[in-house]
Amino acid sequence: MANLEPNDELFDKIVNLCKRRGFVYPGSDIYGGLANCWDYGPLGAQLKKNVKDMWWRTMIQEREDMVGLDAAIFMHPRTWEASGHVGHFSDPLVDCKKCKQRFRADELTPDSECPAGGTHDLTEVRQFNLMFETQMGVVQNETSRVYLRPETAQGIFVNFANVQTTTRRKLPFGIGQIGKSFRNEITPRRFTFRTREFEQMEIEYFVRPEDSDRAYKEWVKTRHNWYLDLGLNPEKLRLREHEKDELAHYAKGCTDMEYFFPWGWGELEGVANRTNYDLSRHAEYSGKNLSYFDPDTEEHVVPYVIEPSGGVDRATFAFLVDAYCEDTAISAKGKEETRVVLRLDPRLAPIQVAVLPLLKNKPELVAKAKELERTLRRHYLVDFDERGQIGKRYRRYDEIGTPICLTVDFETIEDGNELFGTVTVRDRDTMEQERVAIDDLRIYLDEKLKIE
Amino acid sequence: MANLEPNDELFDKIVNLCKRRGFVYPGSDIYGGLANCWDYGPLGAQLKKNVKDMWWRTMIQEREDMVGLDAAIFMHPRTWEASGHVGHFSDPLVDCKKCKQRFRADELTPDSECPAGGTHDLTEVRQFNLMFETQMGVVQNETSRVYLRPETAQGIFVNFANVQTTTRRKLPFGIGQIGKSFRNEITPRRFTFRTREFEQMEIEYFVRPEDSDRAYKEWVKTRHNWYLDLGLNPEKLRLREHEKDELAHYAKGCTDMEYFFPWGWGELEGVANRTNYDLSRHAEYSGKNLSYFDPDTEEHVVPYVIEPSGGVDRATFAFLVDAYCEDTAISAKGKEETRVVLRLDPRLAPIQVAVLPLLKNKPELVAKAKELERTLRRHYLVDFDERGQIGKRYRRYDEIGTPICLTVDFETIEDGNELFGTVTVRDRDTMEQERVAIDDLRIYLDEKLKIE
Repeated sequence: MANLEPNDELFDKIVNLCKRRGFVYPGSDIYGGLANCWDYGPLGAQLKKNVKDMWWRTMIQEREDMVGLDAAIFMHPRTWEASGHVGHFSDPLVDCKKCKQRFRADELTPDSECPAGGTHDLTEVRQFNLMFETQMGVVQNETSRVYLRPETAQGIFVNFANVQTTTRRKLPFGIGQIGKSFRNEITPRRFTFRTREFEQMEIEYFVRPEDSDRAYKEWVKTRHNWYLDLGLNPEKLRLREHEKDELAHYAKGCTDMEYFFPWGWGELEGVANRTNYDLSRHAEYSGKNLSYFDPDTEEHVVPYVIEPSGGVDRATFAFLVDAYCEDTAISAKGKEETRVVLRLDPRLAPIQVAVLPLLKNKPELVAKAKELERTLRRHYLVDFDERGQIGKRYRRYDEIGTPICLTVDFETIEDGNELFGTVTVRDRDTMEQERVAIDDLRIYLDEKLKIE
Repeated sequence: MANLEPNDELFDKIVNLCKRRGFVYPGSDIYGGLANCWDYGPLGAQLKKNVKDMWWRTMIQEREDMVGLDAAIFMHPRTWEASGHVGHFSDPLVDCKKCKQRFRADELTPDSECPAGGTHDLTEVRQFNLMFETQMGVVQNETSRVYLRPETAQGIFVNFANVQTTTRRKLPFGIGQIGKSFRNEITPRRFTFRTREFEQMEIEYFVRPEDSDRAYKEWVKTRHNWYLDLGLNPEKLRLREHEKDELAHYAKGCTDMEYFFPWGWGELEGVANRTNYDLSRHAEYSGKNLSYFDPDTEEHVVPYVIEPSGGVDRATFAFLVDAYCEDTAISAKGKEETRVVLRLDPRLAPIQVAVLPLLKNKPELVAKAKELERTLRRHYLVDFDERGQIGKRYRRYDEIGTPICLTVDFETIEDGNELFGTVTVRDRDTMEQERVAIDDLRIYLDEKLKIE
């Protein structure tokens, strides 16, 4: 394993790149920002969409044992009693009676000084629930306190019976969904890594109890391979299996997938064997039968569930960090210069193909490049740029992870020369250039961009 | 124009189909539901995803003048002062002093009787703000009241300058985003049509003031054509241009796109010329310069904005309603029977291809069909079903809008016969069947399913 060290400078560079190029802006920036909220700009929105689309494609569409779901953020309050969130989803807080400030008890150091003088005069520790509350409805007799869901998983559990019945699925099968969740974290931090509003991609995979150990191991492997297949450095991705005493009382096993971020290891995803705890609790609290009737054995069984639960924002940031690289390139003037390049997998790149006329002031080049851009937009994520020297444009696309630049030059449009109808294709990673006929571009690009 | 009449029975049939087949379930169903919340089941989640993906593809990816965005649901509270939502986004309410019930003032009929006897004894009308509120943060001096955004549009306006700068865009250009919004509607109703939690697909298109009339007309046409291209019946889709006295004081024009739902006309989308109102207000409230500097004319201009604002849930439901059709089919026994079919555009269909072994108890048929299913899943939305008589299976796929069924039969697998290596392809709309070689399926299906 490589020698991994936290790297604040790298973190700053990446956050800066995110803002400067339009991956991620501070939320409500013109109003001075809103603590810990982030808005995904054009490149970040597309990168995140690509991450979600790859998850949906590989985990739902391509698997015969999976179906999708899209449950509401608002759920019946009983859901959160059954799940334990009302009773136990909380952090310890203390107030100072002198300065009136509130702190997270486990993070307050003994030598912290009170602005009102001396040490703090602290209250007893109280538990603070992390769910966001709001009031729904206005007509008095139907107003109710509701929560913003702190996880998408419960939307799957409460729909288990409906999904199983309407799709007539047999065990084993899984339900996946992607959506926003909200936790009123006491100490959100580290850019988009820990935020109060975040997006999850969660699976609940329902199996017979006796199959749960095997399914658990398979899902750990499947999810691990998913990150690797999309390019994460294996030396920066580790599996950490929970010790018995770390596990929730109902859980049979749990493995965290951790990535080495610029500040150190951070969780990307957890895969847990949650036994039949969730379905049993919801059966108890709802009074509904949530068992599965097996038509072959004629037995009723409450399925066990394997839960691979990943963070969309974390995965997106991990792919971005992992792709970030500085290497040496030779400038047009023959000088060595540092090149910043995002070596993103082409399936994740927010712009897959840049179309560039060699010169801006040659209308015939611009027109031909525009024509090519329009054709390619129907098949790929395409951008067009005519501004500045071509080498500088290549660098700008390197920095945002564009795998392929296509340059339209005089050879492209001059009938009679042997390169007529071809463009210069420039590869982000190797910086090598070759000529490809426009008529062959679809096949060439499909292969380079791993499109099936 | 066809004779359009509301049709309660049709509405009931479609809602019933949605629940029975897994398009839409009542939210938190096992807990008796949560007023007006709906969960999209496997078919509905995929249908809605297809609607969003088509919007993103045609409005962002394929257009050279558009970029995407994904802003947070939580925004700085000043946003909603600038937008006018804090002051004016409200409905009139009255309370009855006798029965303590609360009503929407403009919906209470004069002859409504009070449960406490006689007529209601009503309070003065009060304005009730429709934004959901919650508290963010826990450490006392940073706790703040925040709102769940009532529209995604403001996330675009506050990011206008950041997007313009980082993408170096020139006017005209637009920013689009898809996301959840929340309104504490006093009278939500009509299935997924008017809900308190809903999803929007919104564009803000920034133009020079003198180009705004033309851009407005173009966007009305573009968005109208979008719905038609995806199959909505032109006789059930009308444009309604607002009268001058209907317009907000700052607006120069607004056109609603209305679809004839089973209960009557309902708005799918509005396209408005909002002038420079939004950017000017945010400039005023934030103190930031939100003008655009034109490098050609060297002038500063506050762009006008054209806003095509559509509802994802409404569009999804409209496509579903519009696709619903009952016609006559001939059963295997030669009898006429009513066939329910969703004539969804193949680009929207939640399952595009069903793979069916002719008989369940012939392992060689099932194995071949499974093999075909796995190959096709990498390219299409595929389902597999081996249960029941083949004609009944076709009907089940008709009912959920699957354009193509592929049947693997003995001819498919028997070497030596002239149909070896072919499958029966059955068309949802015509019910016609033909033999297609498995080797030709990709090209055949790409064309039938309108995949480019």
